[in-house]
Amino acid sequence: MTLFDELFSYEALQRVFSDESGVQSMLNFEAALARAEARTGVIPEIDARKITEKCGAQHFDLTAIRKEAARAGNAAIPLIKMLTDLVATEDKNAARFVHWGATSQDVIDTGCVLQLRRAFELMDQDLSRLSATLAALAEKYRETPVVARTWMQHALPTTFGFIVASWLDAMLRHRQRLAEIRSRALSLQFGGAVGTLAALAGRGPEVAKAVAEELQLSLPLAPWHGHRDRMAEVATSLGLLTGTLGKIARDISLHSQTEVAEVCEPAGEGRGSSSTMPHKRNPVTCAVVLAAANRVPGLVSTMLAAMVQEEERGLGGWQAEWETLPEIVRLSGGALHHLAQMLPALEVDPERMRQNLDATQGLIFAEAVSTALGDRMGKMPAHMLVEAACTRAREQKRHLLDVLREEPGLRGHLAPADLASLFDVRNYLGSASEFVRRVLAETRELSAAR
Amino acid sequence: MTLFDELFSYEALQRVFSDESGVQSMLNFEAALARAEARTGVIPEIDARKITEKCGAQHFDLTAIRKEAARAGNAAIPLIKMLTDLVATEDKNAARFVHWGATSQDVIDTGCVLQLRRAFELMDQDLSRLSATLAALAEKYRETPVVARTWMQHALPTTFGFIVASWLDAMLRHRQRLAEIRSRALSLQFGGAVGTLAALAGRGPEVAKAVAEELQLSLPLAPWHGHRDRMAEVATSLGLLTGTLGKIARDISLHSQTEVAEVCEPAGEGRGSSSTMPHKRNPVTCAVVLAAANRVPGLVSTMLAAMVQEEERGLGGWQAEWETLPEIVRLSGGALHHLAQMLPALEVDPERMRQNLDATQGLIFAEAVSTALGDRMGKMPAHMLVEAACTRAREQKRHLLDVLREEPGLRGHLAPADLASLFDVRNYLGSASEFVRRVLAETRELSAAR
Amino acid sequence: MTLFDELFSYEALQRVFSDESGVQSMLNFEAALARAEARTGVIPEIDARKITEKCGAQHFDLTAIRKEAARAGNAAIPLIKMLTDLVATEDKNAARFVHWGATSQDVIDTGCVLQLRRAFELMDQDLSRLSATLAALAEKYRETPVVARTWMQHALPTTFGFIVASWLDAMLRHRQRLAEIRSRALSLQFGGAVGTLAALAGRGPEVAKAVAEELQLSLPLAPWHGHRDRMAEVATSLGLLTGTLGKIARDISLHSQTEVAEVCEPAGEGRGSSSTMPHKRNPVTCAVVLAAANRVPGLVSTMLAAMVQEEERGLGGWQAEWETLPEIVRLSGGALHHLAQMLPALEVDPERMRQNLDATQGLIFAEAVSTALGDRMGKMPAHMLVEAACTRAREQKRHLLDVLREEPGLRGHLAPADLASLFDVRNYLGSASEFVRRVLAETRELSAAR
Amino acid sequence: MTLFDELFSYEALQRVFSDESGVQSMLNFEAALARAEARTGVIPEIDARKITEKCGAQHFDLTAIRKEAARAGNAAIPLIKMLTDLVATEDKNAARFVHWGATSQDVIDTGCVLQLRRAFELMDQDLSRLSATLAALAEKYRETPVVARTWMQHALPTTFGFIVASWLDAMLRHRQRLAEIRSRALSLQFGGAVGTLAALAGRGPEVAKAVAEELQLSLPLAPWHGHRDRMAEVATSLGLLTGTLGKIARDISLHSQTEVAEVCEPAGEGRGSSSTMPHKRNPVTCAVVLAAANRVPGLVSTMLAAMVQEEERGLGGWQAEWETLPEIVRLSGGALHHLAQMLPALEVDPERMRQNLDATQGLIFAEAVSTALGDRMGKMPAHMLVEAACTRAREQKRHLLDVLREEPGLRGHLAPADLASLFDVRNYLGSASEFVRRVLAETRELSAAR
Repeated sequence: MTLFDELFSYEALQRVFSDESGVQSMLNFEAALARAEARTGVIPEIDARKITEKCGAQHFDLTAIRKEAARAGNAAIPLIKMLTDLVATEDKNAARFVHWGATSQDVIDTGCVLQLRRAFELMDQDLSRLSATLAALAEKYRETPVVARTWMQHALPTTFGFIVASWLDAMLRHRQRLAEIRSRALSLQFGGAVGTLAALAGRGPEVAKAVAEELQLSLPLAPWHGHRDRMAEVATSLGLLTGTLGKIARDISLHSQTEVAEVCEPAGEGRGSSSTMPHKRNPVTCAVVLAAANRVPGLVSTMLAAMVQEEERGLGGWQAEWETLPEIVRLSGGALHHLAQMLPALEVDPERMRQNLDATQGLIFAEAVSTALGDRMGKMPAHMLVEAACTRAREQKRHLLDVLREEPGLRGHLAPADLASLFDVRNYLGSASEFVRRVLAETRELSAAR
Repeated sequence: MTLFDELFSYEALQRVFSDESGVQSMLNFEAALARAEARTGVIPEIDARKITEKCGAQHFDLTAIRKEAARAGNAAIPLIKMLTDLVATEDKNAARFVHWGATSQDVIDTGCVLQLRRAFELMDQDLSRLSATLAALAEKYRETPVVARTWMQHALPTTFGFIVASWLDAMLRHRQRLAEIRSRALSLQFGGAVGTLAALAGRGPEVAKAVAEELQLSLPLAPWHGHRDRMAEVATSLGLLTGTLGKIARDISLHSQTEVAEVCEPAGEGRGSSSTMPHKRNPVTCAVVLAAANRVPGLVSTMLAAMVQEEERGLGGWQAEWETLPEIVRLSGGALHHLAQMLPALEVDPERMRQNLDATQGLIFAEAVSTALGDRMGKMPAHMLVEAACTRAREQKRHLLDVLREEPGLRGHLAPADLASLFDVRNYLGSASEFVRRVLAETRELSAAR
Repeated sequence: MTLFDELFSYEALQRVFSDESGVQSMLNFEAALARAEARTGVIPEIDARKITEKCGAQHFDLTAIRKEAARAGNAAIPLIKMLTDLVATEDKNAARFVHWGATSQDVIDTGCVLQLRRAFELMDQDLSRLSATLAALAEKYRETPVVARTWMQHALPTTFGFIVASWLDAMLRHRQRLAEIRSRALSLQFGGAVGTLAALAGRGPEVAKAVAEELQLSLPLAPWHGHRDRMAEVATSLGLLTGTLGKIARDISLHSQTEVAEVCEPAGEGRGSSSTMPHKRNPVTCAVVLAAANRVPGLVSTMLAAMVQEEERGLGGWQAEWETLPEIVRLSGGALHHLAQMLPALEVDPERMRQNLDATQGLIFAEAVSTALGDRMGKMPAHMLVEAACTRAREQKRHLLDVLREEPGLRGHLAPADLASLFDVRNYLGSASEFVRRVLAETRELSAAR
Repeated sequence: MTLFDELFSYEALQRVFSDESGVQSMLNFEAALARAEARTGVIPEIDARKITEKCGAQHFDLTAIRKEAARAGNAAIPLIKMLTDLVATEDKNAARFVHWGATSQDVIDTGCVLQLRRAFELMDQDLSRLSATLAALAEKYRETPVVARTWMQHALPTTFGFIVASWLDAMLRHRQRLAEIRSRALSLQFGGAVGTLAALAGRGPEVAKAVAEELQLSLPLAPWHGHRDRMAEVATSLGLLTGTLGKIARDISLHSQTEVAEVCEPAGEGRGSSSTMPHKRNPVTCAVVLAAANRVPGLVSTMLAAMVQEEERGLGGWQAEWETLPEIVRLSGGALHHLAQMLPALEVDPERMRQNLDATQGLIFAEAVSTALGDRMGKMPAHMLVEAACTRAREQKRHLLDVLREEPGLRGHLAPADLASLFDVRNYLGSASEFVRRVLAETRELSAAR
């Protein structure tokens, strides 16, 4: 827990990665293992039941585990010792079979996978919610003109609905990615000391299948102790997602600037206020999402670099994952949650969008004119003619249309009425509306398929 | 070109990302655009043909492009100017329609996608070759005992075939990943100045479809100028692949150490020699692959961080991709190539593997004994008894079997013959062979499916 | 060479890291070694002269070195072979002493250090130029009011000179840092095969001292083959510098936005134009600097991760540095150069700055009012009163001063004239001017000290 | 707190970055500010005393701060509100002057600086302890021969003392670096809302000086809100340190491998045991240090990337630092602590070092022979002759000396006795001992200077 847990993440997700939940996930593996070994006749049914009964995190002293973990090198070793002792206090026979045939890494990795599954469920909810909000915004502002900006400069008109639909389009791809990695990521780890399941003699694969069924995880072809691509892929997939969330937040923050003021994060008691400036309304959600987008890439690089693990169990690389992967989930899931929560109340100001379109006195229609002209006099000459007119308009602080009306080079190419119509924003939105339609159609199709 | 192009990469792949190839890829987009616009009746057929004729990189002065790119901010702007001039020297009419309706980013992104497609083809060949080699090695050494090492210490026996099958298993997952991203990554970029295709009036989507067909790229729902997840996903996927290649190289380098000497990179004229030490045979391929595994994670983090791009075309983020993504491909493709090339000649020494298994005088069978005992006296007491015996064996430099024979705690639990049989490596390989079988079966299935 | 060499870097710096220059730097080490060994009587004077004569890069076939490097694992091994052969064609005796007592890493590391020294010289020039420009700008706009923005929202007034002085202040720290690392970074590497200089019997330290003198490099306490902190520190120092350059570029790009328009990169033939939009003037230098600021952090993380090198010469980590460190220098030096080149012509618009201060109808003076009030009625009540007034002003689209004039809560606390004077920007610039003075004084002092 | 707090870090350091300590550090700033403003006559002495009295973390509800921080965007805003209320319950007059003239960032940044100072003190202790241990080890094993390994292969003999002295040499440089950054890093942040200290009218600099004195921090030329190089430099400096710690841990882990067994982490109750393998003694400290070396580089890249902050207070970048910088300190300080704690008990086995030197039957003296020969017959021919002999020795599994005795090419160049003496390890340790002496002398000098 840090002072920033609720700022950068949120309670339900924090709980998934709490110490208690971490211990419970490991215990869930031990219980499933016992049950699976009972089902396959490897250990007695009664002993499995005794073991299962004790697999509740509330029975364990987290401080003691923390202290012992520092000596043993991981948290599973003390936990298993304590579990064995706990079972033994009631039934020495049953205690014999705690953790039977497994190794620390089986417990730790599978425990982590179980936590990831719960985090994915929470994120799925926010992904649905965010997609639905974006779809509604794209629909609502589908025809609302706004300045499109490239290189942080006014470019052409577009619609605000199209901007939002582009955000949504990227989110659709992320949902597809997360669906694709699901069975690879949510996969049982169970290989015993070095992946051969030697302690189970030839019964290993049979037990593994039963454990996977107990935990409803996918069964891998073979244990994957030293091969961390499954875990690293969770990191990279969330890294990609966070990149898009950051892009959305950057867009919102740019559109929210005092001079632009086209959108605004919702107000609210204490939201985005300043300790000294009474007029301030800071875009807090953007800050949170952008902070995540700043932090996750470095954490992803750690997960990738840590893949180079030694032989059958790594020294340093595996250990590097333990806090890094949860941190990635905490930050990306937190950013997703806060954005999904804020967006439905985003304030959008179509009137101000219109004013900004007009602010450059027609310069934003420069391409419209040069395209119309280009058709007649060639792209390059048209480009140069309009470029010169733009410079003149800027220097003389006049409207581009007025400057062009005096331009002799235009005569014979564009009738005055045609020229004027080029400065109507509705005539230069291209296929923005059609693209919005396509993204929305795909969104509906995907929602229906779920 | 650097002094290390052939060390870290290889000629065919370097060629894909040469300046000439970069220019040609952009010209291929311009030619396809012209043809598509002719097909859809947007520009005259004859003009499209004139444009297409000039779309050969050999007609362009790379030094001039390089110089102009520094002023314009990208390489497409000067290239398009030069192409327009070149077409104009023959046909002013045709020159009007060069780059019609497109923007620099359309040219640059689609050009990059075309280069990626060619790189993927090269990598596919090496992935096939590497998989086949790994399958053959796994098959050949399926039953060959070798020390499994965890935390860089002897753990238990495994088989060398299983180690290799685990490498192969990971490679199967990477091939699946690369198949999944294919249509997302190899996707047309075509949106005009701000993604609306406004300059094509309502004809944009129709022209886009035709361009995608011309280039055999997937047609996206909408242009994706500011959304870089497609590009970043190429980076993350190759990052994951490189992590596994690095893991394989680390394993080989550890098994190759002078004291271990279980495998050895092939010798060869000048290969891995030293400038001063005549007896040296350095694992050069491992160094190359590990260098890539060191470098790619940081480059991937750049691609992820660069996703946070401003509005309809970013400032800094987009530009950061231009050299970073090719570098990732160059390094990951290079590592893959060199590993695929070296592995068929890897020298494997089963005899030495056997000696190393014996080197610790039975300690490697400690778990076998404690498992057998655990069944009878409980896991924890057995663990402690054997742990104490191991310490004694180490201190007295005696064989663990001999120490255990004198151990009173064992009596009644294990008959002498049973105890001795626990020290036979063939009795403690668990399901290694079965796991190898499964991975090989899956490999065959996937190969058949291609 | 890539298409972007002149965009992201510049010719003189590219030349420092060209293949030819890389080879020449290694040859400079070999020549210095020969001369030093002659001076100390380890090899004959005449042989040293023969060796030195051949140490010109023009004698060597770079393509052959590139090819051989792929086999040998580094570029020094083939180079030394070729140099030996070349010397031998004239004098077999002299050829005996080529590379006497040294190892590949001595040549490669020291060669790299020599290239870094040349790069530092180039960067020093740009650092001086940039500092001088910033000092002039800070001086000129020392009293020019401009909106200070926090969280991307209007905050309070500041002066443009103070913004620039803050940039300069950071640059002063970077110059101090670069001065501090100089002797650690520009340090001779010379240890022979494993750092003991065994091949020179006991003469090693004496020869090392002579080589350091020849090359005018610092002499380390001991060879540092496996310890890469010197190289990594160059990377981190340039990483810090690039972060500040990126911050400056981000500021400029934000102040340059169409709606803000307070500053503007200079225009120029083809500078920042668009392939389709005639009115565009893109901030190309900002893009270049921000691209560097995007890319360098990942490259620095590679250098840090690569420090974990094995024993007396690493496998993978050392090799990872070879292209990464030059890339960092190329990008940071390039960003520095382009910024230093652009800034003297930066267009600054104090009039527009003034308009933007007025754009929010007095809201920017909210803190001034609440501070004045706070003194009388307490900070929190004042804050709340003014916050409410701001909300009202915003909703009613009125000037804050007008709203406050009607505010009963103010009566008795602030006389009307005092209230009005709080809305004079000159009364709320605090110590901006004093801070500018301090930074400029320090700058002058440092310049004088050089 | 996570399950791994004592594994990756340690209690005293964790405490420095606890929530309570974070809050206390911010309160220390508020108290110092009040005292400084009283001293300079800006606020009444009595009010300052009242404020100071309440500046104890025990008075504050951390859960409430955490919750409010999520709304406000940082933890300082709710803390200041609560402090104001708390003071007001006793004295409304005093409450007026809480946080007078300051902004959230002043509190947060200076609070962080105070935490860093405490962390530096802890790290200084471990740096001293580690240096002293390394000096003792270098002295003790100064003449102990051991195999030097390059590219993970046997190279030449060196001494174990020289290996340790090289570690120490790097540590000396890190201590120098940390000394250099001290005043830059431990610097007051105090600028008010936008760095101008406007709320203090012209008294800002005077108050700032007094606050710096109160807190014993360096006084910067100007506030540095948006310029993060001071914080980022802490990150890079610790990144460099962690890289060296990782290098030391990698060396130890390689020397500890079962087949090498030259050193061994100390045993101890539960230390490095396995959940299933009774014979295991895992190098837990190496794992912890290597995990840190895996994780810190990515975190450093985040700090560098986050430097690109917007204008007078960033959106996303600043917030990204809040958990990242403490994490870097926690990991690097933890790695340092655990290594400093373990090293005094490191088990070193000179006998085994000797055996490993002999294991390759004289190959390790190949360079010694070729150097001796090279003097007579030229470096290249000697190299080739010895290389061929090495290959023969390896193939025939004979001692290199025996093979060379039969070599006709040697005759006339090396007398039999001279040849034999080349195989005495004491004759080929070069200047190892001298380098150890120099590093130890420098260490003593530095210790004396402190």
